[in-house]
Amino acid sequence: MTSGLRAGPLPARRTAGGKLLAVLDAFTRERPALTLSEIARAVGVPLSTAHRLVGELCAWGGVERDEDGRYRVGLRVWELGALAPRGLGLREVALPFMEDLYEVTHENVQLAVRDGTEVVFVERIAGRSAVGVLTRVGGRFALPPTGVGLVLLAHAPAEVQERVLAEPLTAHTRHTITDPRRLRRVLAEVRRTGMAISDRQVTEDAVSVAAPVEVSGAVVAALSIVVRGSSPAAVRDFAPGVRAAARGIGRTLASPGAGWRAP
Amino acid sequence: MTSGLRAGPLPARRTAGGKLLAVLDAFTRERPALTLSEIARAVGVPLSTAHRLVGELCAWGGVERDEDGRYRVGLRVWELGALAPRGLGLREVALPFMEDLYEVTHENVQLAVRDGTEVVFVERIAGRSAVGVLTRVGGRFALPPTGVGLVLLAHAPAEVQERVLAEPLTAHTRHTITDPRRLRRVLAEVRRTGMAISDRQVTEDAVSVAAPVEVSGAVVAALSIVVRGSSPAAVRDFAPGVRAAARGIGRTLASPGAGWRAP
Repeated sequence: MTSGLRAGPLPARRTAGGKLLAVLDAFTRERPALTLSEIARAVGVPLSTAHRLVGELCAWGGVERDEDGRYRVGLRVWELGALAPRGLGLREVALPFMEDLYEVTHENVQLAVRDGTEVVFVERIAGRSAVGVLTRVGGRFALPPTGVGLVLLAHAPAEVQERVLAEPLTAHTRHTITDPRRLRRVLAEVRRTGMAISDRQVTEDAVSVAAPVEVSGAVVAALSIVVRGSSPAAVRDFAPGVRAAARGIGRTLASPGAGWRAP
Repeated sequence: MTSGLRAGPLPARRTAGGKLLAVLDAFTRERPALTLSEIARAVGVPLSTAHRLVGELCAWGGVERDEDGRYRVGLRVWELGALAPRGLGLREVALPFMEDLYEVTHENVQLAVRDGTEVVFVERIAGRSAVGVLTRVGGRFALPPTGVGLVLLAHAPAEVQERVLAEPLTAHTRHTITDPRRLRRVLAEVRRTGMAISDRQVTEDAVSVAAPVEVSGAVVAALSIVVRGSSPAAVRDFAPGVRAAARGIGRTLASPGAGWRAP
């Protein structure tokens, strides 16, 4: 998982409110539980200030103390996050379509959105006998190597594409595309075909096929199936299903009842 | 949905950071999209202050502006919420067990935790042909009328039980238990039998059976199945499945690999 655009604490322009947000930023997927001194160090404030900030967040419910005395992100943040249209809102509309795909394939089904130059995974149904995947709900990953990322990048604003193409492309396996010219050609093909295939670009044994979720012409998310395989042929049969499900999600999001707005 | 213990903005003791949190509190399930002046009104600050607070939250990713110019909770909050052990952490462990229950029953499967005197629904798999339920993921409800709430209340600290029993019990249907003495007897039975049945206490056509998720003797969540029915008999056959799945979730949470701690 890359950290990418997330700037994290910026001590220079830190307001009182900014310090409170910096405490929340201290919690990561890799470090979900922190002691008070770890928080103080991460935020760059004295222990007494950290104590006051954590106290304020605890009272609000944004941070909870576990039985070991360490702090974790609180239920209130999760509950507020459930109101984010690109989080749980999107997920609630998409889940029935994802369940259908899962029931007919029993493979990994993934839904993701783009945030800056990264993929954020919003939902995943993991087949227990399906191939292992690195992604987690709420987790981030670079755009270029993943199927969903290729779809989201292909339909991103030009400046986002140029930013990604200007940076070195990390090789996760020997199949990862690291040549920006080749990536540019792949993105053009994704736009032309309406789908993307990532062939063992993240792990050596997994191939994915992804399709765009469109609302009034804008790509707001991407849906994929990830299967065990050693060539694009492994996912060809799944492409129509993924594309149809992605269209269904887009159509449902666009319906007036969904109360969903593209950000 | 009740608002219960959530105090909301408390202008009296409001710090600069507190105002930032109050902006987030302005967003609710009923009002997920707000204009700047609605935010200013909800927080109780001048428009210029609201503008600065919202700007700070936008830069952080906690709030996003939609195409209509209204603000919504941002992806960053959802992403942070994914780190909450009682939110997505619990849900990731529980989901495979919930999927198994769903595959064998095709009924509504729900997972909930207690926050103060309310139920918070952490996950739900909704059968499309199953009975309609009022709950939403991230939504809150009173404890006494729901199956999961009865389980969570039965195992709550005595002071929480007394607080709930001291308040008037809202009748959602003519079957809702509103007599505190009767509720007290039901809670004792829930503790004795290791399960709870809510018979049409929330809606006229739904019956649920719930069981506790225990980690080292503490009840940390409750699992239920909600089916269409007009008597407790409607769910009797589902009770063993719900109880077994709830035990499986608790056992997995307790395993060292789960990285889960009771709050």
